[in-house]
Amino acid sequence: MAANDDGRVTFLLYNGMEVVVIPDHHAPIVTHMVWYKIGSADESPGKSGIAHFFEHLMFKATANHAAGELTRAVAEIGGSINAFTNRDFTAFFETVTPSALEQMMGFEADRMRNLILTDDVVKIERDVVLEERRWRIETNPGAILDEAVDATLWQNQPYRIPVIGWMHEIAQLNRTDAVAFYNKYYSPNNAVLVVAGDVEPETVKVLAEKTYGKVPRGPELLPRVRPVEPQQNTKRTVTLTDARVSVPRFSTHWVVPSYRTAEPGEAEALDLLAEILGGGSRSRLYQALVVKEGVATGASARFQGASLDATKFAISVSPRGDAKLADLEAAAGAEVARIAKDGVGNDELDMAKDRLNRSEIFAQDQQSYIANIYGSTLATGGTLKDVEEWPDRIRKVTADQVKAVAARYLVPGHSTTGYLVPKTEN
Amino acid sequence: MAANDDGRVTFLLYNGMEVVVIPDHHAPIVTHMVWYKIGSADESPGKSGIAHFFEHLMFKATANHAAGELTRAVAEIGGSINAFTNRDFTAFFETVTPSALEQMMGFEADRMRNLILTDDVVKIERDVVLEERRWRIETNPGAILDEAVDATLWQNQPYRIPVIGWMHEIAQLNRTDAVAFYNKYYSPNNAVLVVAGDVEPETVKVLAEKTYGKVPRGPELLPRVRPVEPQQNTKRTVTLTDARVSVPRFSTHWVVPSYRTAEPGEAEALDLLAEILGGGSRSRLYQALVVKEGVATGASARFQGASLDATKFAISVSPRGDAKLADLEAAAGAEVARIAKDGVGNDELDMAKDRLNRSEIFAQDQQSYIANIYGSTLATGGTLKDVEEWPDRIRKVTADQVKAVAARYLVPGHSTTGYLVPKTEN
Repeated sequence: MAANDDGRVTFLLYNGMEVVVIPDHHAPIVTHMVWYKIGSADESPGKSGIAHFFEHLMFKATANHAAGELTRAVAEIGGSINAFTNRDFTAFFETVTPSALEQMMGFEADRMRNLILTDDVVKIERDVVLEERRWRIETNPGAILDEAVDATLWQNQPYRIPVIGWMHEIAQLNRTDAVAFYNKYYSPNNAVLVVAGDVEPETVKVLAEKTYGKVPRGPELLPRVRPVEPQQNTKRTVTLTDARVSVPRFSTHWVVPSYRTAEPGEAEALDLLAEILGGGSRSRLYQALVVKEGVATGASARFQGASLDATKFAISVSPRGDAKLADLEAAAGAEVARIAKDGVGNDELDMAKDRLNRSEIFAQDQQSYIANIYGSTLATGGTLKDVEEWPDRIRKVTADQVKAVAARYLVPGHSTTGYLVPKTEN
Repeated sequence: MAANDDGRVTFLLYNGMEVVVIPDHHAPIVTHMVWYKIGSADESPGKSGIAHFFEHLMFKATANHAAGELTRAVAEIGGSINAFTNRDFTAFFETVTPSALEQMMGFEADRMRNLILTDDVVKIERDVVLEERRWRIETNPGAILDEAVDATLWQNQPYRIPVIGWMHEIAQLNRTDAVAFYNKYYSPNNAVLVVAGDVEPETVKVLAEKTYGKVPRGPELLPRVRPVEPQQNTKRTVTLTDARVSVPRFSTHWVVPSYRTAEPGEAEALDLLAEILGGGSRSRLYQALVVKEGVATGASARFQGASLDATKFAISVSPRGDAKLADLEAAAGAEVARIAKDGVGNDELDMAKDRLNRSEIFAQDQQSYIANIYGSTLATGGTLKDVEEWPDRIRKVTADQVKAVAARYLVPGHSTTGYLVPKTEN
């Protein structure tokens, strides 16, 4: 076991399962998360949605437990349980009292390998996912637009595929697909266990060996090398005009490196650029468009740094009253261009660093947040060191570095913009 | 051997190779084509360009012939030789005197299985392809735009991938990839032989058995089921602004069914719609924009019906003088909308049918053209019957059917438009 200054501990089980323990004795609860290094971007062509499908299937019956038993057990002790899927990973977690940790580990270790995947189970749950897609995406013009924007931004990299899957491909997922996927990806050597909370590392180790430790190692997986994006040379737009749209908006997206693919310092600079440009009410976009000109109801910027492959930087603006999207886009573009040309001030940068670090410190108070940071970092090819050194690396970013990433990546002619437009406006 | 009224004959060799013979005694030449049912849309993720790479590798040394021997043999007898790759197939052909047919068959049968794929051969030819991509695509803004338009139009179907491959993926193709690809796809049971010209079917049969007949059957391949496109709900644009552009243009693209995927009559109606809308100087777009208004130097429409999967319908317009792309787009859109709303006249339809059939009849005079029709049809899942009945099916299309496909498929809000713009204009 390797422990760092904060008492955070990491070790490997014999079967290859990675374990991180983050002791936190503020409250008598524990967050228990299992992260599988499998997401929608790992799916085979034509099988979109299967990673997210497993987020559902994992709640069905196993050889040892009936469907619903785990959820009921958590509810009975007043805990919470959930799961989520993204492009790079699938995670399952419970927040419970420390006394229930062993039970949770038993449940998770069991469903890692003992799911009963019959035709009926697959078919019924597939209908549930199709229904989920109907209400989350098909009835939501903003979600339909976001899918088309991603598929336009990413022309080669699999991030173009929606995490929930394309409707017609979900509809064709079958038991054979499910069994093959489960046997390939659901194994201790493809998983990371994160336990944060009111427990001692030694206890977690004993319990992990007793539960997960008994699960045999699964097949060796090839490195996660996926198709990467060619150089973008064009400016692209995607417009959805729909009578159901009441609040119009536009968002502009650029392909940028992630923490995993960036040259040293670039991802940190992009994090600060997002904070300066659109990270809240103190940001440039918000101040210019919402506060000063009063033409927008919202303006933000976002950098999704925790990605296995190249990721995106996006700005998003919603007009106030009858402000035109084209005018807002020009105004927002001017703010982006200003940073790329003139850079940022040192005071402004320091305040952005403070805000980022403060939000990080506040967030550290929330057990599940810190468990999330560790899990998502490890599941996207990062290390504990990356997590621990991050505040320091943010501190070291210079104003020149922020200007440089803006100039290098936020090129107007190499962007993808989505427009959500009410039907009447056209 | 099954012969039809025109004396065209088809048969299978024992190893599964399909053979079509089209006797044509107008001139003492013969066109000999081998079509492999493998194209860029069949490539594995990240391996773009490998199908086209084989168009090159097939000219390298085999166990029995030095590199260049085949090309020299054809040149010595005054024949011609070439090869091409598209999304659905790769084809190799020679046009020679009938006396050289056996020799050509021998060469083709040999390179079907006996290529020597060393690291050196692969590396040197890969550099040739990279160079080809540089001069065909990278130095050509129109080609860069076309690639981005295809990748924007196709968000799931593999037609989004350029046939030549993405530069960074071509650069990584290696001997292991090449050997696996060759062993999987280059086999008699994955090929169609088309021989058109001054030969008798019996002679072709004897020669084919003597040459191709000796090549062992290859692995059984799964049906060519590829990811298909989800419903398009958005209007998309792709703009390339470049100082090298001297002639601006726009083109609008729609996803439409191909002959293989269409409901009965729809593909034929789309062929006629393309002819009526933009099939030459008599077409509506040309008459309106070039002749009447004088705002365009060219205007055309195209339907790529011979595709294994859903395909595209495109219109393309180049402005004259300082006509604005936006105005031309509106004018062209109005012509499209007019057909979708008011349909086409019966006389207009009859004339379009005549033009299509006449161009077909003229083309029949050209041996390689008819060999092409048979080869491309058979390599994209069609049958001889499809080729032979096509003129009759075109004759039967009604004005209502043309209107219906225009209304159903050429929806303005579900289109993808590419703009090629000179730098100064911006």
